[in-house]
Amino acid sequence: MRISIVLILFLLVSFSVTAQSEDEKMLRNIYNEALTHSKCYSWLDHLSNTIGSRLSGSKSAEKAVNYTKVELEKLGLDSVFLQEVIVPHWVRGEKEQAYIENNGKKIEVPICALGSSVATPKKGLKASVIEVLGIDEMIALGSEKIKGKIVFFNRPMTPIHIETFKAYGGCIDQRSSGAREAAKLGAVGVIIRSMNLRLDDYPHTGNTNYGDLPREKYIPAAAISTNGANLLSEKLKENASLEFYFKLSCETFPDVLSYNVVGEIKGSENPDKIMVIGGHLDSWDLGDGSQDDGAGVVQSMEILSIFKTLKYKPKNTLRVVLFMNEENGNRGGHKYAELATTNNENHIFALESDAGGFTPRGFSLEADEANFLKITSWKNLFEPYFIHRFVEGHTGVDIGPLQSKHIVKAGLQPDSQRYFDYHHAANDTFDSVNKRELELGAATMASLVYLVDKYGID
Amino acid sequence: MRISIVLILFLLVSFSVTAQSEDEKMLRNIYNEALTHSKCYSWLDHLSNTIGSRLSGSKSAEKAVNYTKVELEKLGLDSVFLQEVIVPHWVRGEKEQAYIENNGKKIEVPICALGSSVATPKKGLKASVIEVLGIDEMIALGSEKIKGKIVFFNRPMTPIHIETFKAYGGCIDQRSSGAREAAKLGAVGVIIRSMNLRLDDYPHTGNTNYGDLPREKYIPAAAISTNGANLLSEKLKENASLEFYFKLSCETFPDVLSYNVVGEIKGSENPDKIMVIGGHLDSWDLGDGSQDDGAGVVQSMEILSIFKTLKYKPKNTLRVVLFMNEENGNRGGHKYAELATTNNENHIFALESDAGGFTPRGFSLEADEANFLKITSWKNLFEPYFIHRFVEGHTGVDIGPLQSKHIVKAGLQPDSQRYFDYHHAANDTFDSVNKRELELGAATMASLVYLVDKYGID
Repeated sequence: MRISIVLILFLLVSFSVTAQSEDEKMLRNIYNEALTHSKCYSWLDHLSNTIGSRLSGSKSAEKAVNYTKVELEKLGLDSVFLQEVIVPHWVRGEKEQAYIENNGKKIEVPICALGSSVATPKKGLKASVIEVLGIDEMIALGSEKIKGKIVFFNRPMTPIHIETFKAYGGCIDQRSSGAREAAKLGAVGVIIRSMNLRLDDYPHTGNTNYGDLPREKYIPAAAISTNGANLLSEKLKENASLEFYFKLSCETFPDVLSYNVVGEIKGSENPDKIMVIGGHLDSWDLGDGSQDDGAGVVQSMEILSIFKTLKYKPKNTLRVVLFMNEENGNRGGHKYAELATTNNENHIFALESDAGGFTPRGFSLEADEANFLKITSWKNLFEPYFIHRFVEGHTGVDIGPLQSKHIVKAGLQPDSQRYFDYHHAANDTFDSVNKRELELGAATMASLVYLVDKYGID
Repeated sequence: MRISIVLILFLLVSFSVTAQSEDEKMLRNIYNEALTHSKCYSWLDHLSNTIGSRLSGSKSAEKAVNYTKVELEKLGLDSVFLQEVIVPHWVRGEKEQAYIENNGKKIEVPICALGSSVATPKKGLKASVIEVLGIDEMIALGSEKIKGKIVFFNRPMTPIHIETFKAYGGCIDQRSSGAREAAKLGAVGVIIRSMNLRLDDYPHTGNTNYGDLPREKYIPAAAISTNGANLLSEKLKENASLEFYFKLSCETFPDVLSYNVVGEIKGSENPDKIMVIGGHLDSWDLGDGSQDDGAGVVQSMEILSIFKTLKYKPKNTLRVVLFMNEENGNRGGHKYAELATTNNENHIFALESDAGGFTPRGFSLEADEANFLKITSWKNLFEPYFIHRFVEGHTGVDIGPLQSKHIVKAGLQPDSQRYFDYHHAANDTFDSVNKRELELGAATMASLVYLVDKYGID
């Protein structure tokens, strides 16, 4: 009896050691492949430098759909297909203008329209300005003080958070709801401090949401660069009755047809269990969307490419999904989830990369306790690749609508220090992405996908 | 008896909880201070953009000595002083020229002289080329095949290492010893593939060492950009008898007087126990030395600034040392160690930052087992700041010569993915440093210094 227990223990330990070293070997192969033969950087080069920015409904978004479909087809997947998505079609129009008019002197400042904003009158809009640090402060002032004014939301991102997304989360209501709430109090326009931890001259766009406000009550909304915001605040301290002028020419056209791009490797054991890996194909229009989210798109494509090259046959069905319209509607994410329900698909896992192409640090996870513990038990396998963070938290906007009882969701967490230097701004361009950092992100994602595929979800 | 044990345990646990939360609070204060009021980025701005590159013996190196001395004096330290260091004085001269001459066609390629190299003849040097992947391969070919040729060392950095310094370590012999060994076999010059993981057009300099070779046998040595190296290699495959031309005008002048800059806070309990924190003030001459090692200099200064602001009085004497001449001689490091011995000083700890101003990941440590375990026992305190790596390994060139029985040495380990994009090249400039990443490095260093100061070295 005693001997057989020892034998069983021995066999268990042997198995565990063998399994461990098989996984170690596989992860090493994945990283080696990504760092030596990856296609993701050249895909990103094409998306960014040949196609350019990919705002929903634009010609270039259409080109990106076609390009990525063709590139996925070249990988020899089991199928590549499109999902129809009806998307908003907002266009910025001519370059925005703005100045501070202080004692007869005009000082130009860099602004850009927020996505979904209405235009100003053709000649622009001039009004006095009231600076607030948030929506609550504005509401406390009351409509008497707000009426006829431009509301200047100037709450900066807090620098002390190590994870910069936390600082972003602490400011984003100004951009998403500032215009709606200001309009309710009779404001004529809003100017939002750019969500950027640096002081520079780039205005950062992003969507604003008028909610259930009647269309005729919409007021124009723009972002001002952080340097511009500091200047405006300083000038307001000198002269509270200065005026601000801005001109936006943006316009919302009727919705148009676009697509999610999907590529699939059928599962060898559980073809009906689906694992989704994705990023979003659309981007804002100011830069070329390399960080947000060209990086996530090409990393997601790369994972399937790595598995094909390494001849790894997944047990479960692996799908790369390049979602359309994350930035101003999340219509692609909703459409994907809707079709999953309609087709009675069983999704066990979803992984999104939408936080930039920087050095990967780990994953955020949405999982029950058992699966969270299971995934964190693989930490040692990731240690040689300097991947340490496995934390509960928000994983991805595109995979958000996908709901099922046992789904585990993950979001790649790259180093976040530089993300908001580029996010939604004209400098979100190809040169801001480092090839190795991008590749390490893809390898880190592929490693997690491999482990989840192999060991399953509880 | 039982009760008193319980009581003791309770007191121990209470103390440990209190101590823990005191340390947690202190680290939070250090990071908050660094991320909100740090001076290090503006110091770096001045060093990089007003003073510029700081090659040993240059006017700008002298300016950097004066500037940092004055800035340290402003911090209200107990003393600020200079240590005389005699340094080499090598000057690049006019911009280098090089071309591949292939079937009568000249193709220009970007090169730069290696530090300490001799010049070519005034009209330049033209010879046929022999490509090798390393010194051993060259030696195996023998003097018959090398004599009269330019040896082209083309072993690239290996991309699969996660820690890029490992890839650097695997190539550096080509640069440091290639010229010396090639000269012994009768080569007339050497061209070294730049130590850069990217393909681009920047040649990366760095020191070459002729060792005990007689002066008249020195041959000129230059680095070629990675794109240039690939092109040369490709052309050699087409035509093994092509020629390479290059012209270097560099010159070595007599040694000159320079300085280490030292600032000190006297220890409140153990003034005779010294803890050194440093980076090197000199840099190569092609960029402005922001990453190598302006970042380490200003981070080291920042630590003392943080402690002054937080009114933390160290138990042990804290010294910031801005070393001169790390790049081509390490004379500052040797001088500091020599004076420490002469003055019978007791150094318990030395920390260097010389791996760029990128997001900090942890520390390399040179410590005996007890102290290694002691330091790693603080890991949890660093976790909220995403600092995970505490590994044995090389810590710093400048603190290398400092030897004492019980000294513990540490090197800040920033994320290394982008370091060799800039290292020793013309693009090592201020814009490559992110303010937050630089500040996080300073805070991480200050946190370790605080813990070592408080809990001592065994």
